[in-house]
Amino acid sequence: MAKFITVGERIHCISPAIREAMANRNPEPILQRAKEQIDAGATYLDVNIGPAESTGVELMKWAVTLIQSHFDNVPLCLDTSNKAAIEAGISVYNRSKGKPIVNSADAGDRIENIDLAAANDAICFALCSKAGVPADNDERMVYCQEMLERGMMHGMDPADLWFDPLFLVIKGMQDKQMDVLECIKMLSDMGLNTTGGLSNVSNGMPKKIRPIMDSAMVAMAMQCGLTSAIVNPCDLRLMETIKSCDIIKNNDLYADSYLEL
Amino acid sequence: MAKFITVGERIHCISPAIREAMANRNPEPILQRAKEQIDAGATYLDVNIGPAESTGVELMKWAVTLIQSHFDNVPLCLDTSNKAAIEAGISVYNRSKGKPIVNSADAGDRIENIDLAAANDAICFALCSKAGVPADNDERMVYCQEMLERGMMHGMDPADLWFDPLFLVIKGMQDKQMDVLECIKMLSDMGLNTTGGLSNVSNGMPKKIRPIMDSAMVAMAMQCGLTSAIVNPCDLRLMETIKSCDIIKNNDLYADSYLEL
Repeated sequence: MAKFITVGERIHCISPAIREAMANRNPEPILQRAKEQIDAGATYLDVNIGPAESTGVELMKWAVTLIQSHFDNVPLCLDTSNKAAIEAGISVYNRSKGKPIVNSADAGDRIENIDLAAANDAICFALCSKAGVPADNDERMVYCQEMLERGMMHGMDPADLWFDPLFLVIKGMQDKQMDVLECIKMLSDMGLNTTGGLSNVSNGMPKKIRPIMDSAMVAMAMQCGLTSAIVNPCDLRLMETIKSCDIIKNNDLYADSYLEL
Repeated sequence: MAKFITVGERIHCISPAIREAMANRNPEPILQRAKEQIDAGATYLDVNIGPAESTGVELMKWAVTLIQSHFDNVPLCLDTSNKAAIEAGISVYNRSKGKPIVNSADAGDRIENIDLAAANDAICFALCSKAGVPADNDERMVYCQEMLERGMMHGMDPADLWFDPLFLVIKGMQDKQMDVLECIKMLSDMGLNTTGGLSNVSNGMPKKIRPIMDSAMVAMAMQCGLTSAIVNPCDLRLMETIKSCDIIKNNDLYADSYLEL
């Protein structure tokens, strides 16, 4: 089995410092966040430029080139609703450390991002939703099938679709958590790769609780077969938990130093 | 679903302080360990007096009476290979907070402990082993069936047999960990209760790693349906993880204060 893949979430235009750095093409704040996440053990880095309707093409090219040139072609996840910006990012992307990821498609308005990923030999995050939160796993699996067929029709390797069951916030949807985990198990049993925005589960909880809850959830999700997640890699407890689950799953060989590797 | 049950493991004659306290009938060290574990959130306390072949009857009666009289009849798990001592302990045991647990039966030489538990309306830990470590889950499930039939033949409620898949040490048996988790899932799918000596998995690891590894394992095991475990309740990270998994499983209602409850 392959080791769990973490996608660092911290280069995101929702952060004022990052938004400003993107607007002014100021490398430092972005490189700093990239370095922090790589040092903390992130496999991929997400680059979220927001909708960026007018400036997205140039911005994404700049960001991809900037980050990859400074960090040995670290693999990236291109995160925007601007399709032209994703394609522009891929056009300057170096694949030596891993395919680019398109973040993201769904079974609704964004299904064409699967076509885009297929045309560019990219990985694609595929949200099991169409409009809003799916009511149950029957609905999630219908969307999964739609997206799987779309990708395969365009010649994609199913392994390049990473299905996202949609992690839900516990405060408000506590009784839905086991459904999400069950969905991961179903996707895993089909041999599919999976991902998701893990920290959604602890949204709105006190700050000191979030790493505790996120860690419990990632371990349960990894037991169900989750193969990757979008996370804050600077959350030490979470990364320790992921590494420990990789040991338990025999994805990585145990050594007393495994937490430092 | 019911909340996860923790059985505190720290009143154990392997500890020199406890062994001496038991030999000299010195209440203080035992009461202190009991208090620490209850304060840390243990549901049951294990009372391990060792084989205690000559003195076990009086010792177990003394220990049960001592602990229950000081801590509001906290439920106990009577842990010795001396059957007469278990029966003596049960004879003075107050059930107001929960049935006594017999620790433990297996499918081999100790299968008669199931009869003892049945005769005394006690819970019984049932190790899915006969002689040594079971080779695989086929073997574990055969032993489970043998013990289940034995208990039911004596009129036990199957819910009072808590099956232990035998957690295995990662250092040496890393490739067997997912089998143990799969066994818990199989037992859970049969509607059975489960337990086990969780900290076996991290045996021999550096001290600072053990809470991290044990926490990852308990979350994965709770996802598989584990309903209880024998643990060190003074391991804060472990207890936080158990409480968080109980929230995710909707066994307990979320409140921002759930870690303090």
